[in-house]
Amino acid sequence: MKQAIVARADLNMGEGKLAAQVAHASLSAYEDAGRKARKRWKGSGQKKVVLRGDSESQLFELADKAERKGLPYAIVRDAGHTELEPGTVSALAVGPGSEELVDRVTGDLPLY
Amino acid sequence: MKQAIVARADLNMGEGKLAAQVAHASLSAYEDAGRKARKRWKGSGQKKVVLRGDSESQLFELADKAERKGLPYAIVRDAGHTELEPGTVSALAVGPGSEELVDRVTGDLPLY
Repeated sequence: MKQAIVARADLNMGEGKLAAQVAHASLSAYEDAGRKARKRWKGSGQKKVVLRGDSESQLFELADKAERKGLPYAIVRDAGHTELEPGTVSALAVGPGSEELVDRVTGDLPLY
Repeated sequence: MKQAIVARADLNMGEGKLAAQVAHASLSAYEDAGRKARKRWKGSGQKKVVLRGDSESQLFELADKAERKGLPYAIVRDAGHTELEPGTVSALAVGPGSEELVDRVTGDLPLY
């Protein structure tokens, strides 16, 4: 079981900002998951990988792929109080789900 | 309502690694919170701040402070598969809780 979080490298977010967006995406996708998937993922150490995306359209395409595979996912839009324009899509989390299934959605992306 | 996540800057984690540790801490403290606090925090946009810590002992002191104030919190130890030694304490999340109460624990720390 794992969760993959794809964050937009093209936005040049600061480290703390990036971490907050990733955490937001992670928690939201977790909440979108079923009780069984949540439990299995937590029981196995809640494995996470943070991956590098490069555009809003890419994140939406990946979200669509996750949807079609029946995986939980969440897109994060920044509230825009600080570094980003309000409503900027900054991150997508996919899973928790089986490693194989998550990899079919995000497996081609480099580590952040 | 907010949650503060204190990550150790002295470990010089890469950006993606840092984000994963922060997400791990965030979710674990969230799970430690009561149903009411979780709901109120999510309803108000799950505000998060990522702050800069500089030692393991500091994180434990802050965790102790959170405990005494009755705030949910979680300490993250890295599994050590990649950048860090196994068991390294990398991050602490405090809250969700009222902004005032969380600030009494972590209010003096700089943004990451």
